Amino acid sequence: MNPNIQTWIDQLRSGDVRTLARAISTVENRAPGWSELLKALFPHSGKALVLGLTGPPGAGKSTLVDQLAHLYRKDDRTVGIIAVDPTSPYTGGAILGDRIRMQEHFSDPGIYIRSMATRGSLGGLARTTADVATVLDASGRDLIMIETVGVGQAEVDIVRLADITIVILVPGMGDDVQTIKAGIMEIADIFVINKSDRDGAEHVEREIRALQSLALRHDGWTPPIVKTVASQGVGTRELADAISDYEEHLQKENLALHKSVENWQERLLEMLRDALLEKARDLMSDGGVARYASEVAEHKCDPYTLIEEIAANLGKN
Amino acid sequence: MNPNIQTWIDQLRSGDVRTLARAISTVENRAPGWSELLKALFPHSGKALVLGLTGPPGAGKSTLVDQLAHLYRKDDRTVGIIAVDPTSPYTGGAILGDRIRMQEHFSDPGIYIRSMATRGSLGGLARTTADVATVLDASGRDLIMIETVGVGQAEVDIVRLADITIVILVPGMGDDVQTIKAGIMEIADIFVINKSDRDGAEHVEREIRALQSLALRHDGWTPPIVKTVASQGVGTRELADAISDYEEHLQKENLALHKSVENWQERLLEMLRDALLEKARDLMSDGGVARYASEVAEHKCDPYTLIEEIAANLGKN
Repeated sequence: MNPNIQTWIDQLRSGDVRTLARAISTVENRAPGWSELLKALFPHSGKALVLGLTGPPGAGKSTLVDQLAHLYRKDDRTVGIIAVDPTSPYTGGAILGDRIRMQEHFSDPGIYIRSMATRGSLGGLARTTADVATVLDASGRDLIMIETVGVGQAEVDIVRLADITIVILVPGMGDDVQTIKAGIMEIADIFVINKSDRDGAEHVEREIRALQSLALRHDGWTPPIVKTVASQGVGTRELADAISDYEEHLQKENLALHKSVENWQERLLEMLRDALLEKARDLMSDGGVARYASEVAEHKCDPYTLIEEIAANLGKN
Repeated sequence: MNPNIQTWIDQLRSGDVRTLARAISTVENRAPGWSELLKALFPHSGKALVLGLTGPPGAGKSTLVDQLAHLYRKDDRTVGIIAVDPTSPYTGGAILGDRIRMQEHFSDPGIYIRSMATRGSLGGLARTTADVATVLDASGRDLIMIETVGVGQAEVDIVRLADITIVILVPGMGDDVQTIKAGIMEIADIFVINKSDRDGAEHVEREIRALQSLALRHDGWTPPIVKTVASQGVGTRELADAISDYEEHLQKENLALHKSVENWQERLLEMLRDALLEKARDLMSDGGVARYASEVAEHKCDPYTLIEEIAANLGKN
């Protein structure tokens, strides 16, 4: 192994936050050595509990995550937070500002917060998030919280990495809640109704219960509904208890490994695809893509035959 | 060429709706012959004007699309509509019901409506949508409208296929509109404020104008804001006029080809990635993925080295 990388790993595992930040940047930006670093870190990973939290914009996820983090710190558990905003493909969005504020707020090195810059559609946000989680895990954090804004496929992909998925809803979302719930009902291990002091909390709860009765889970777990008012710290302990309950359920039913194998099936295929895409980009380098794109746009060749030929030639060079 | 495929194409181009439905299903489901069919259809495509329409759930997109379709029919232009709902990865969602209703409603074969079932994260919804658009285009439809529910990366990927992108907002979305707009401001060629008879329409308009002043476009086009009340047909003509204006702008500035080349650069890479994923699945067949996933989940091997080895061996078999 590169001695430089061994030094990194020693510093990382000793809890050095600067090294952690640098290692995450290396992985996130695919900077030189990222792959070697992940290979060396992987054997140290797999010990952290990974929580995924998702919900629509404005549901109060950040506040809830902060509350949970402080609570876990009281139990002397170290926490890593990854904040992802896939709804904002270009600008990066307001979340970065929130996070800078939080970062200043926390003087406790036991809480490490990282905002993920978003990437293009080919970049594989879910995969990069998983790799960053591996770094945090290998650095010895007890708990990792992955927080993502939104309710689409990208969020489902990201949250699926987690051992435990928490879906956060709020009262008063009107008809939007129907659409949102359709996509995330199936992935929730725990529901949170945040801002539950508002009108309509019971209505949201009834809706969740009604949808649950239509789609029973195969693992014998009925996702509990926890009501919180995160801005006042109400319900945080109950949420932590629900997380513990589900963790026990996973262990008792020996489901944790099963879930991990399922996740890795998807992730390995994605990783292989990305590795092959790298090869493909090389094949199309030196303006190759632009030239092919012009020919297709002008209808001088058909893209389907073109791609077949390139894929078939792969490995022959 | 397969004589069977030639027959399909003849029937398709003669306007036969059953053949169109069958061709779309073949492409959407990647049924046998899909690739050959697309290759044969591609030379007939590139003539339709493709509109992409996106916006949050409940913005009234379907109604607006219906209104536009009827208006174009009055000008004797044929219309194809593709309705995509990427926010609902598992259930398919309520949109299918809406579409069945619409399908019954329309007895005019000049309007063809297709709902796209959603796919897993590896399936490439944007790519399949593009392929279905190619079929509609090659069948001779003058206008294709791609309608997608939501405001995340998936929607941006899909709408980017279009010649003209229309973003639909509604008054009274509260803080959510900030998050939504951050992601879609940059892709909108035209803004629609639907349900503009509601309180807050001016507020939404001011917000769009404020964001526009921060991010000027390079092509000299300022996206107009069209106010509609789609349920009453108000503003549909103005929207069609705005679409014509932008179409003229694209032609005048010779931007249409430029935009098409840019789109194809992304699409070719995505197609290549998908073709390589097929190769990857083959390489990992016969329970290979499951076995590798178990080994990684149990930390018996590291996934990064594993994938490198598989990719390196590609083409040697």
